Amino acid sequence: MSQSPGDIIEIVIKCVNFAAVKHKDQRRLDPESSPYINHPIGVAYILTNEAKITDVDVIQAALLHDTVEDTNATFEEIENEFGPKIRSIVEEVTDDKSLPKQERKLLQIKHAPTSSYEAKLVKLADKLYNLRDLEKATPKRWTPYRVQEYFAWSKKVVDGLRGTNQAMEDSLDELFKKRNVS
Amino acid sequence: MSQSPGDIIEIVIKCVNFAAVKHKDQRRLDPESSPYINHPIGVAYILTNEAKITDVDVIQAALLHDTVEDTNATFEEIENEFGPKIRSIVEEVTDDKSLPKQERKLLQIKHAPTSSYEAKLVKLADKLYNLRDLEKATPKRWTPYRVQEYFAWSKKVVDGLRGTNQAMEDSLDELFKKRNVS
Ligand SMILES: [Mn+2]
Ligand SMILES: [Mn+2]
Repeated sequence: MSQSPGDIIEIVIKCVNFAAVKHKDQRRLDPESSPYINHPIGVAYILTNEAKITDVDVIQAALLHDTVEDTNATFEEIENEFGPKIRSIVEEVTDDKSLPKQERKLLQIKHAPTSSYEAKLVKLADKLYNLRDLEKATPKRWTPYRVQEYFAWSKKVVDGLRGTNQAMEDSLDELFKKRNVS
Repeated sequence: MSQSPGDIIEIVIKCVNFAAVKHKDQRRLDPESSPYINHPIGVAYILTNEAKITDVDVIQAALLHDTVEDTNATFEEIENEFGPKIRSIVEEVTDDKSLPKQERKLLQIKHAPTSSYEAKLVKLADKLYNLRDLEKATPKRWTPYRVQEYFAWSKKVVDGLRGTNQAMEDSLDELFKKRNVS
């Protein structure tokens, strides 16, 4: 792909604006009910800043990764606005919400090892962001047991994503160690 | 400036993450109390999408334009993170909150014509975003008179920014015409 710096700026701003508008009415589970959009932006920032990934497809997918799962956005819309490659990565990181929650969580463990490289990067950064959030403060109505269970499940997903990015895997392993999850 | 596509992605994501974290607890005045961060992102998107501006300094300044005015961010912090050029544009578009509101509004009219090209672009996009927001819905506790007065004041600022970007000026003029502001 030969994209000029101008093309890159245009597409990244279009992505982040699309996600911000779609997630507008959604809040995070943290005690301050932060804007949800801070999460996909933070996931993209983990990728550029810590994982040193600046591939424009991966960053676009990171910004858009929860739009179909959590808002009225559709895969068709993602493809129309951002092309088939981005749609395909977003599809890989989107849970099927028609399934029961426990099944969705098992499928994340099952699908991790066969994901594309791009999807693995987004999944690692997503897990790292979410576990750091949990480390900072327990969401309203979550018991300590539920938090610990979330860490244990995340570890099983991450185990299927290994060999993808050392910096993110090291940071995740530190968190797992702190929680005695193995 | 010769920046690679990778550098550009890195700096734009760093900017939008910085702004999102700083504006985290702030909401817009619209009836839905949207996340404040949607505004600077929307201003950047007006610039790339409508004004066809993809200069990385302008887009960075657009993303950061309200951080010093409205959050605990400082000009020193902006300079340390993003360099003196970005600090200088952000300074140009930041009101001095130690002054009374009426004086700040007069100073915006006064300073518009002598602003740099980059600051003029951010100011035009900022006004366009804010007036469209007002056009969509009246903020809680605003009277129709206050809305009309805001349009009239904005027109005076915009008059000092003319000759900068035809697309944005045309869109602003349409809004002024609709409101009978001249
Ligand atoms: Mn996510
Ligand atoms: Mn503004």
